[in-house]
Amino acid sequence: MSEVPNVAIVGATGAVGEEMRLCLEERNFPLKSLTLLASARSAGKKMTFRGEELTVKELTHDSFEGIDIALFSAGGGISLSYGPSAAAAGCVVIDNSSAFRMDPEVPLVVPEINPEAARNAPKKIIANPNCSTIIALMGLAPLHDAFGLRSIIASTYQAVSGSGAQGIIELEEQVKAIATDQPFEMKVYPRQIAFNVIPQVDAFTDNGYTKEELKMLNEGRKILGLEHLKVSCTCVRVPVYRSHSISITAQFEKPVDVASAHAAYADRAGVKLMDDPANGVFPVPLDTTGKDDCLVGRVRKNLVFNNALDLWMVGDQVRKGAALNAVQIAELL
Amino acid sequence: MSEVPNVAIVGATGAVGEEMRLCLEERNFPLKSLTLLASARSAGKKMTFRGEELTVKELTHDSFEGIDIALFSAGGGISLSYGPSAAAAGCVVIDNSSAFRMDPEVPLVVPEINPEAARNAPKKIIANPNCSTIIALMGLAPLHDAFGLRSIIASTYQAVSGSGAQGIIELEEQVKAIATDQPFEMKVYPRQIAFNVIPQVDAFTDNGYTKEELKMLNEGRKILGLEHLKVSCTCVRVPVYRSHSISITAQFEKPVDVASAHAAYADRAGVKLMDDPANGVFPVPLDTTGKDDCLVGRVRKNLVFNNALDLWMVGDQVRKGAALNAVQIAELL
Repeated sequence: MSEVPNVAIVGATGAVGEEMRLCLEERNFPLKSLTLLASARSAGKKMTFRGEELTVKELTHDSFEGIDIALFSAGGGISLSYGPSAAAAGCVVIDNSSAFRMDPEVPLVVPEINPEAARNAPKKIIANPNCSTIIALMGLAPLHDAFGLRSIIASTYQAVSGSGAQGIIELEEQVKAIATDQPFEMKVYPRQIAFNVIPQVDAFTDNGYTKEELKMLNEGRKILGLEHLKVSCTCVRVPVYRSHSISITAQFEKPVDVASAHAAYADRAGVKLMDDPANGVFPVPLDTTGKDDCLVGRVRKNLVFNNALDLWMVGDQVRKGAALNAVQIAELL
Repeated sequence: MSEVPNVAIVGATGAVGEEMRLCLEERNFPLKSLTLLASARSAGKKMTFRGEELTVKELTHDSFEGIDIALFSAGGGISLSYGPSAAAAGCVVIDNSSAFRMDPEVPLVVPEINPEAARNAPKKIIANPNCSTIIALMGLAPLHDAFGLRSIIASTYQAVSGSGAQGIIELEEQVKAIATDQPFEMKVYPRQIAFNVIPQVDAFTDNGYTKEELKMLNEGRKILGLEHLKVSCTCVRVPVYRSHSISITAQFEKPVDVASAHAAYADRAGVKLMDDPANGVFPVPLDTTGKDDCLVGRVRKNLVFNNALDLWMVGDQVRKGAALNAVQIAELL
């Protein structure tokens, strides 16, 4: 992008859309104008950006005239329908949905890991990876560079904000109803989420895995360029408002120990070690809420396999897992 | 035990002690008398058993005269100090603490898995395993019998009642304080547990694992009689009041698929399949609260290893994970 761009956010009133606006502001992203787009229902709403009041406009196929970069976060259906219109209007689309992630002509980018991929976007669409995948790979990429990643076994502890604003409301309302002994409805989740955990995130596929669980396999291979990477994952929703945690067993090609693993994180952007169990230091979801960096702790030699580590990773999935990563991709352009 | 026994509960006013009394009553456990023992602080408290009011007595080294079976759940220190006194008085001790579990002269028993071990108790002490270990093995033993267990990789989602009544109070008080925007103290857990998860259960050891994480390895080997079983575990506390959940990857000696795994659970006592993801059927902690059976769901072929499955297990850790298992051991005698 040779000039200062005109930027649009599609889904500007959603949880991730709002965080995208915040990230653009906080990072002093250079832009000529910001256009906020959403459904007809949200059009007319006022939002502040850099002290200026902006009015949300209704998304149409003609919304992208003169826009250089559009950050999409309004669900896969909207991306499939409006993404190509935006690209046809000359705009680069950075899409937070899963709609284009596995398209071989669409790069899937974590700027700290595979920034070079963003350069080759023949469809003018760049995909933002799944939130748990970003957080896991932010923790694993430094180790992959040093020891060669072979396989991942992951169990997630995913916050309700991963389901958008409605997930947050559902947890809040259930906690309130239980405190006052009132009945409550379940709208977003198939079971009670307050004081419970639910081993289902996204829909089930034929092999018994959910779509969410297969994303770490398919997206992980594409981002790391590791065709034969093996990944098995169990995704679980927990009653946490924000930040996903992931318990990981990772096997490597080369021998690895805790000291050499710790050393691999030196000078890496976007990921920090928080690993001193003897002094009670390890990351929890509350540590990353609203923060850019992913945190890694509980690094130890796995007791089942050679050349393997167990780790605990935490990251704000609204921020690095979605909005921040999309804005960082825009910064690459 | 040739005659109807006199039974005592040590730690009768604790969360597990209360559940032991409930289990004895519900299961119509044949007994001549029930003696409730606790610290001086709790002595004098009244509790009901089979419609009769019993008074809690202070635990002393002379408490076990005439007692045939003593169920201990008052912490490792009390077990180490008073367990041998009880055994010396001719009583069989069934101990819920970790104090004697790895003693080669103390059997470690899950009645559905290794009931025969209870017969050989030269010290007159039988140990009740760790709660997460019991729940994991209840789900894995049927598969071990059919396919030969080689290794376990586990991530737990452990309820606050695993820390006793104080854990429940801490979660309740934090939820209330957050709702009314009041400050709160942390007494039981090192970090906020409400709307958070904490990757530490029990104290850290030198290799970076917590004591709790090593229990599944050491106790699993002893209960299954599998000297070379490999286990790597990450134990995490979650804001759930009751019932532990465990995400497991298990490797076997023989080939295994979902249908043959399902078949292995037929006619097994104490464990039930709840596994029909296409129809949204999988177990959550609320399904097992106050129930005897452990539940197994999300059975699927692991995508990293041959002869391996991923599974999701849930069980009430106060009940099958502690009190019920102890009473079942007493029933073996």
